[in-house]
Amino acid sequence: MSSPRLGFEVQAAIADAEGTPRARACRLTLPGSRGNAHEILTPMFMPVGTAGTVKAMTTAELRSIGAQIILGNTYHLYLRPGHERVERLGELHKFMNWDGPILTDSGGFQVFSLAGLNKIDDEGVTFQSHIDGSSHRFTPELSMEIQRALASDIVMAFDECPPYPATPEQVRAAMKRTVKWAERGLEVPMKPHQTRFGIIQGGLYEELRAQSAREITALPFDGFAIGGLSIGETPELMQKMAYYTAPLLPQDKPRYLMGVGRPEDLVEGVRAGIDLFDCVMPTRNARNGQLFTSRGKVNIKNSKYADDPAPLDPECPCEACTQYSRAYLRHLFIAGEVLSARLNTLHNLTYYIRLMGQMRSAILENRFDDWTKAFYTKLRT
Amino acid sequence: MSSPRLGFEVQAAIADAEGTPRARACRLTLPGSRGNAHEILTPMFMPVGTAGTVKAMTTAELRSIGAQIILGNTYHLYLRPGHERVERLGELHKFMNWDGPILTDSGGFQVFSLAGLNKIDDEGVTFQSHIDGSSHRFTPELSMEIQRALASDIVMAFDECPPYPATPEQVRAAMKRTVKWAERGLEVPMKPHQTRFGIIQGGLYEELRAQSAREITALPFDGFAIGGLSIGETPELMQKMAYYTAPLLPQDKPRYLMGVGRPEDLVEGVRAGIDLFDCVMPTRNARNGQLFTSRGKVNIKNSKYADDPAPLDPECPCEACTQYSRAYLRHLFIAGEVLSARLNTLHNLTYYIRLMGQMRSAILENRFDDWTKAFYTKLRT
Repeated sequence: MSSPRLGFEVQAAIADAEGTPRARACRLTLPGSRGNAHEILTPMFMPVGTAGTVKAMTTAELRSIGAQIILGNTYHLYLRPGHERVERLGELHKFMNWDGPILTDSGGFQVFSLAGLNKIDDEGVTFQSHIDGSSHRFTPELSMEIQRALASDIVMAFDECPPYPATPEQVRAAMKRTVKWAERGLEVPMKPHQTRFGIIQGGLYEELRAQSAREITALPFDGFAIGGLSIGETPELMQKMAYYTAPLLPQDKPRYLMGVGRPEDLVEGVRAGIDLFDCVMPTRNARNGQLFTSRGKVNIKNSKYADDPAPLDPECPCEACTQYSRAYLRHLFIAGEVLSARLNTLHNLTYYIRLMGQMRSAILENRFDDWTKAFYTKLRT
Repeated sequence: MSSPRLGFEVQAAIADAEGTPRARACRLTLPGSRGNAHEILTPMFMPVGTAGTVKAMTTAELRSIGAQIILGNTYHLYLRPGHERVERLGELHKFMNWDGPILTDSGGFQVFSLAGLNKIDDEGVTFQSHIDGSSHRFTPELSMEIQRALASDIVMAFDECPPYPATPEQVRAAMKRTVKWAERGLEVPMKPHQTRFGIIQGGLYEELRAQSAREITALPFDGFAIGGLSIGETPELMQKMAYYTAPLLPQDKPRYLMGVGRPEDLVEGVRAGIDLFDCVMPTRNARNGQLFTSRGKVNIKNSKYADDPAPLDPECPCEACTQYSRAYLRHLFIAGEVLSARLNTLHNLTYYIRLMGQMRSAILENRFDDWTKAFYTKLRT
């Protein structure tokens, strides 16, 4: 069932105590929309470019810090500026000036979490725009058509993500609907370079996760995502469910844990056997002054940094850490300067992407457990 | 009376119909605070870095677009983060990571225009912080001490800028006080690399401008600024007064027109014989979506740009113009994205700095009148 469009090679994998291959370093190739084939070396974090821009960054900066793939949001781009407009203007890559690969989500998660009153039926979801309250309807078919117009490299299936907490009956119904919607989406033809990922649902119920994994992986997707996590449950429950679900997905296809998470969650995700991650945390928290460093979190607005001449993170090679002091970064944040959002975002994304690179090296050099221990030790000093 | 600290050479000057030297290309040298001598080729525009940052820009970007000198605001930096803190952290250049020259204003204009209720007497000005309403007092001496702590390369005298409109009596009183404050400021010792500019006041009254110029230029300043313009009067009146005042200033010292202005105002200022300019217009208007181009102003939020694939200004080499469409710039503005402020600011500053470079070349090649005609023709097409 493997698509010739997506190439995937497991370069190294580390088995757990039961002999199950877990943490892995992979090479993913995509044909690209203009004959510019893409390569992604995993584990990798995908910065979130919600509305055709990774907030506060230029694409040149994203390239410079090692971002290999970014995410675009179907829901946001459909509402504004409109997917047909983006297509007329040369598709999403050209519109936003990013020549690397783009993954688009299906819009499913946003219509449930962001949009106003939504009404779900077997055919699709009717919802109100969070921008102007106007009424819209997404179906699995329309989600594919939008993603086709955007011309992303990886297209996500349209799924139903039940809220947390939810009863087993609610989660089962959403899981079953997600399978049907996945099948309907697969009937919609996409552009030649586009590949597709299916989404596993099932909430925090192992039995439902297992059933979802069986049914979704039976479909001809190029990769698989674990959805429906990081929506309010504790990090421990999230990590446990990712650890349970990851080995239920094929060894020879990429695995993506959606919407996760904190640095520790990425480490635990990689340990579980996940290849790809996305989350708004590094970008959103940056704008709120919360910075991730090799020694743990820094809340840059704290008055203790007002006279601190030290770099934010002495181990970080980014412009914020090599060119400025904590005192200056605090000043920018307190003064509400645009440069605060810029430098903080640049730093947090650099931290996340370097973290993935360190894990990849550790896996390739068969020292992932040691690396993980050192990571936690340093984080807690 | 010329200070050995500031070097100044008029490389070319164009005489008006009466034979008065007017538009000129000059070379200004400053010793720098760390043995890094600075050169400024005029006419030049100085981007405004109010609170230790030119809003939305990094200093690396400022260098890349040809900015040769930037401005810092004494009033803002005194209030936040505090000039003594900036000095402890290595002075303003190091704090904000800018190794080129910095001009600091005296805080005079801000305490009259930005601060809450202010009370002026011969000794100084008592005012309320626009940030928290706290009470503060500036004197000519304190203004010098703040600028000494910041360690700017060009220090501005503390002046009284009367409002517009004002009676001749009000303007005369402020003008006389400005002379006394200039003398008092000159008594305060500065750091060895620092140079000082005096400020001409006199409102829109030629007689008072002439008297102010006589009295201020008799003092041992390294350069002279025309203050008290662009505060509400029409552009025509502003241009007329700058044209009247410029030749009253010494030929062998730099001339600076404070707070001006629109591209046309810069052209008329250079025509009058001005060397240096500063204004928040390119940076502030950028954040409001008003962009300056070789064909006139573009209000990027206008719906007519929603599907426009063309570059903002086909003649501009900046990242916003070479990498993105008008449609994308409009989308970013409408969506309230940080990248909108970034790209718009980068473009407007590039436009302003290139405009100055074009005028400099035209003066050096003795074709300034032709250049000016072509500038206006194109602007109005």
